Amino acid sequence: MNVAMPGAAGGKSALISEPADIVVFGGSGDLSKRKLLPALYSAELEGRMPPEGRIIAVSRAKQTDESFVAIAEQSIFTDAKLKRDEETWARFSARLGYTPLDATDGFSYKGLADRLSSAPDRIRVFYLATAPDLFGVIADNLASNKLITPQTRLVVEKPLGHDLASSQAINAELGKFFDESQIYRIDHYLGKEAVQNLMALRFANSMFEPLWNRNFIDHVQITVAETVGVGGRWAYYDKSGALRDMIQNHMLQLLTLVAMEPPISLAAQAVRDEKLKVLKSLHHIKGTEIGQYTVRGQYRSGAVDGQPVPGYLEEKDAKGASDNETFVAIKTGIDNWRWSGVPFYLRTGKRLTERCSEIAIEFTRPPHLLYAREAGSIEPNVLVIRVQPNESVKLLLLNKEPGPGDLRLKQTALNLSFADTFGHIPDAYERLLLDVIRGRQTLFMSRAEVEEAWRWTDNIINGWREYPQPIRPYPAGGWGPASALALIERDGRSWRDDLN
Amino acid sequence: MNVAMPGAAGGKSALISEPADIVVFGGSGDLSKRKLLPALYSAELEGRMPPEGRIIAVSRAKQTDESFVAIAEQSIFTDAKLKRDEETWARFSARLGYTPLDATDGFSYKGLADRLSSAPDRIRVFYLATAPDLFGVIADNLASNKLITPQTRLVVEKPLGHDLASSQAINAELGKFFDESQIYRIDHYLGKEAVQNLMALRFANSMFEPLWNRNFIDHVQITVAETVGVGGRWAYYDKSGALRDMIQNHMLQLLTLVAMEPPISLAAQAVRDEKLKVLKSLHHIKGTEIGQYTVRGQYRSGAVDGQPVPGYLEEKDAKGASDNETFVAIKTGIDNWRWSGVPFYLRTGKRLTERCSEIAIEFTRPPHLLYAREAGSIEPNVLVIRVQPNESVKLLLLNKEPGPGDLRLKQTALNLSFADTFGHIPDAYERLLLDVIRGRQTLFMSRAEVEEAWRWTDNIINGWREYPQPIRPYPAGGWGPASALALIERDGRSWRDDLN
Repeated sequence: MNVAMPGAAGGKSALISEPADIVVFGGSGDLSKRKLLPALYSAELEGRMPPEGRIIAVSRAKQTDESFVAIAEQSIFTDAKLKRDEETWARFSARLGYTPLDATDGFSYKGLADRLSSAPDRIRVFYLATAPDLFGVIADNLASNKLITPQTRLVVEKPLGHDLASSQAINAELGKFFDESQIYRIDHYLGKEAVQNLMALRFANSMFEPLWNRNFIDHVQITVAETVGVGGRWAYYDKSGALRDMIQNHMLQLLTLVAMEPPISLAAQAVRDEKLKVLKSLHHIKGTEIGQYTVRGQYRSGAVDGQPVPGYLEEKDAKGASDNETFVAIKTGIDNWRWSGVPFYLRTGKRLTERCSEIAIEFTRPPHLLYAREAGSIEPNVLVIRVQPNESVKLLLLNKEPGPGDLRLKQTALNLSFADTFGHIPDAYERLLLDVIRGRQTLFMSRAEVEEAWRWTDNIINGWREYPQPIRPYPAGGWGPASALALIERDGRSWRDDLN
Repeated sequence: MNVAMPGAAGGKSALISEPADIVVFGGSGDLSKRKLLPALYSAELEGRMPPEGRIIAVSRAKQTDESFVAIAEQSIFTDAKLKRDEETWARFSARLGYTPLDATDGFSYKGLADRLSSAPDRIRVFYLATAPDLFGVIADNLASNKLITPQTRLVVEKPLGHDLASSQAINAELGKFFDESQIYRIDHYLGKEAVQNLMALRFANSMFEPLWNRNFIDHVQITVAETVGVGGRWAYYDKSGALRDMIQNHMLQLLTLVAMEPPISLAAQAVRDEKLKVLKSLHHIKGTEIGQYTVRGQYRSGAVDGQPVPGYLEEKDAKGASDNETFVAIKTGIDNWRWSGVPFYLRTGKRLTERCSEIAIEFTRPPHLLYAREAGSIEPNVLVIRVQPNESVKLLLLNKEPGPGDLRLKQTALNLSFADTFGHIPDAYERLLLDVIRGRQTLFMSRAEVEEAWRWTDNIINGWREYPQPIRPYPAGGWGPASALALIERDGRSWRDDLN
C-alpha cells in the first residue's frame, strides 16, 4: 500500500514539562565538568529543561552544594565558555546540589535518599559517570536503598566491558535491578548531528535508497582519525587499544546506521532491531583471515601540526614495551542481500595527520565510459558524511571543467556545511541527556547490540592472540602504517586522504 | 562486457594548428559586434586560434579594413570590456579585414573571392549573421563564385524558418550547395557550460542514471525566464512569439539533453541520433488538448526590479492590438519506456520576476514516510541545473535541522557554483566558433532535429488557430498568468518560484 503514514518520532512536544531529578555519580569528575554540566546549562539556556527538577552530583569528595555550584560555574563559563545569562544561570544554579557518597557503601546513600524522597514520583535519572567496575555495585546499592522507581532511568557510558564476557556480566548486573527499557547506554557518536542526519538522508530522501546496495555501491569507508596521543591515559589505554576504544562502539554504530534496512518506524525498538540485524550479519574475521583483513599499528615519535610529539612508548607513564595497537584498519563486510560483496573498510588511530571522523560511501563507476581517458580520470561518485569536526554532507561528482578546449572532467563537491546552513551545532550530550529525560531510547544502544558488537570484536582479539600480528610502527603525523594502505590498495581501492 | 573504452571526444589537441579563414556575413552587425568578435578575440587571448587565418567581415556598408578594425576594437574593449593585451590585439587585428558585398548580387562576391583565393586549401567558415531569408541566396552565390571548397563550413543561426515548411525550404536551399556535414546550426544554448555539463553529469557519474527514469523521477520542469520586454524588436517578435522564439529551439534542445538515452559515443552523429529519438517521441499536443496543456500570456505594464515598465501593447513600434504570446507554458511528455507518464513542464516569458534559465528534475517522494508530518513537509529531492545566470548544479535534499528538540527536516541544497569552483566561465560563442573550426558538430543541431522540433511546434500553433486560446494578460514583474499556475497545480505539483 502506498499510503503515507506518520512515523513514531513526532507528536511529542519539544518542551519538557515533567519534572526530573538528575543524579550524576562522579558528578565533580572530568566527564561531568567537560560535558554534562555544560550540556545541561545549554539546555536551560534554550528553555528545554524541565521547569522543575534538580541536578545532584554525588561522589566521595567532601563538598557542599555551594562549592559544587562554584565548580559548575567554572566549568560552564570559564572552561566551556558558554554564554552567561544571569537569569538562566540563577535558574540553573538553583537546581544544583551535591551529596557526598561512597558508591561502594550502601549506607552512605542515605543523604541522597533523603534528598530524592521529597519528590518520589519525579522522573529520576542516575547518570553513572564512573569507572564501569562500579556500575554493578551502584545499581545494587540504589536498589537496596529503594531509589529505583518506575520513573527511574539509568545512564551508562562506555567501556561496557572489555570483551563479551565482561560486557555480559555488566549487563546482567544492571539487568538485575533495571529493566532494559530503563537503561540508556550512551555512545555519544549517536548524538552527533551528522550521525542523526544520516538516517534523515537515507529515509527522508528518495534518491539514495534505490542506489543504496551492492549494485551501485562499490565500498564504504569509515575513518575516525585523531591527532592526539594517549595523553595521561597510557595505563588505561594500553589495556584497551584502538579496536576496543573506537571500533567496537563508535565505528560499528556508524556502520549499522549506514547499512541497516529501513526500519518500520523511528521507534527505538524498530531502529535497534535493524541495527542488530546488521551486527548479526557482520562478517566475522577469524583464523587466517586475521592477517589478511586486519592491520595493527603503534605510533612512533613524529610531528603533528608542525609540533614534535613523542612516540607511544615515550608517553608519560608508558612502560618500556607494549604491543598494544594505537591504530587499526579492518576490512569487513555484511553478509546479507543488500551488501553481499561490498567491503566496509574501517580505520582509526591516534597521532594521525588530522582530526576527522567521516563516512564515505563510494559508488560504482559508470558501466560504460563515454569520456576518453584524456578527459581526466573517471573518479567515482562519493557521498561523504563528515561527522566531526565541521559537520557536512558532500557529494563528489564529476563535472565538466568549463572552457572551449578539449573536454576535461573534474571531481567536484556539491557541499552542505551544517554550520554555514544551520548556524550553531549543539553538542551531542545535550541531545542525549534530553532524550533520557524524555524517555527516548532510539539514540542509545541496546544490550543485544553491545554484546553482538563484542562478539565480533572478540573474534578479532582472539585471532590476534592465535595468529599474532606484528604491530606496525607508524610515524606520528602520518596516515598510519603502510600495511593499512596495502589492505585497501590490493583491492584496487584507496583510502580517502584529502579529508577536507 | 564490462570493458572500459575511450570515447570519441578526446584525442584531438585543444590547440588548433590548421589555418582557417572566417567570413562573417553581416560582419559589422549587432551579433558580430556583441558576440562573434569578442569570442574570437577571447580565443586568441587563450591561444586557441589557428596560428594562420583571417577574419573577414562582409556586408553592404562601405568600409575599409581599417575602419572595420576600429569597429572591432570598440566592440571588444569598450563594449565587451575584454582584457587588452597589446601583443594579442596586434596578432588579432592583423587577421581582420573587410570586403563590401551585396549578399543578393553574385557579381559583388568578386572582392571576397579574390581575397580567399590566396589560400584555397584553408578551412573556410562562412558565418551567416544575416536575416534568414538571405541564407539561400548567399549559399547560391557562394556556389556560383566557386567559394565552397571541401574544407568549407557554413554557420547559420535561428530562426531557421517560422514553421516546418519554411524551415524545410531553408534547409533544402542550403542542402543544394552544402553537405549536411558542412552545416553548423547554432543554438547558443548548447554552447553554455551548464548545458554541456548536463551530459557529463548524466554520463560521467554513475549515481544519476539508475534514477533517471519514470520510476524515480516525478516530473521535469524547464524555465527560461526573462526580465526584458521586446525592446526595439516588436515588429519581429510580434510575428514570432514565445513558442517559436524560445521553446521550438532552446528549450526543446534542453529537453532532449535531459531525456535522451545514453549515446553510443560522444560523436556528433551518435548524440544527434539520440536527441532526434526524443523529439520523435515527444507527445504532440493536438486538438482539444490545446486548451488543457498550453497557456499563452502577454505582459501588461508593471514593475521589474522596482522600475515601472510598459505593457507589450505600449512598447515602441507596437500596434494597438496583438494576440501574440510573450509567455507560454506547456505540459508535454515523452512517449517511450524511460519517460512514459513523466510530465515535462516548460515555461518561458518576457518581463518575468527574474532572469533565469534552469532545468529542475524533481524526484519522486519517498515511498514510505518514517518521519511524521510534524517533522516538516517532506519536500522531494530536486536536481537543479542553472543554465544562466550564475551557472550551478544544486541538489535539494532533506536534512535534519540540528538541535536537541523534536526532529525537524529541512530542504537544503548541496551546491556547486561554477564560478566559485572554476572561476571564469567562457561565453558560449567562443566554444561554438572553435568547434566549427575544429569540425566538431556535436553541439550543433541537425536538420532532422530542427524539422522534428518544428513538426511538434506546428501542431501547437495550428491548435491555437483551430481552438483559439485566450491570451492571458499578466503583470510585468510576476511569474506569468494564473492559468500557468493552474496548468501544473491541477496535477498536484508546483512551479519552482525560488530560483536562487
